[in-house]
Amino acid sequence: MPSENGLLSPQERDAALTRLDGWSASGERDAITKSFRFADFSESFGFMARVALVAEKADHHPEWFNVYNKVDVTLSTHEAGGVTHKDIALAEAMEAIAATV
Amino acid sequence: MPSENGLLSPQERDAALTRLDGWSASGERDAITKSFRFADFSESFGFMARVALVAEKADHHPEWFNVYNKVDVTLSTHEAGGVTHKDIALAEAMEAIAATV
Repeated sequence: MPSENGLLSPQERDAALTRLDGWSASGERDAITKSFRFADFSESFGFMARVALVAEKADHHPEWFNVYNKVDVTLSTHEAGGVTHKDIALAEAMEAIAATV
Repeated sequence: MPSENGLLSPQERDAALTRLDGWSASGERDAITKSFRFADFSESFGFMARVALVAEKADHHPEWFNVYNKVDVTLSTHEAGGVTHKDIALAEAMEAIAATV
């Protein structure tokens, strides 16, 4: 059961990761990460633009680094200090968007 | 005078930096960097979207990291191995866009 602030236990986080394609726990902090690769900048930024709309609507935003066809994403919930269901939901949304690019 | 591949000399690069607000030479490689701060994610991503259009049109793209209201930018010209006039032009375009946000 999630804690009061929504923080997932390591077991809950890892169970969620097994359902996500290519995501892993960050080695540096309580966060999940994935490096997306696209054909070019246009595809990368198209992906980012669609994710930005979802993120803004959910009021839950990614950390991301982009160079050309690469988008490295890190998700964590600042106010909870780690991974919550909000991060899993945003990761799932990113998967759905990336699948259509 | 720029070299054949357009690479600016350190003197030319530094002269260009003095004309740009808040940009500096990267300590790590031949590149220029600036950390932009905005009010929130919407402003950050609005800035990035407008820059993306300029970058795609010029076929010259930034490296950038965004989290919420922060956009850290690094500019360098991959095929030249360092800073060229393309980076200065993109930095100037970013300044003009940021000034309107």
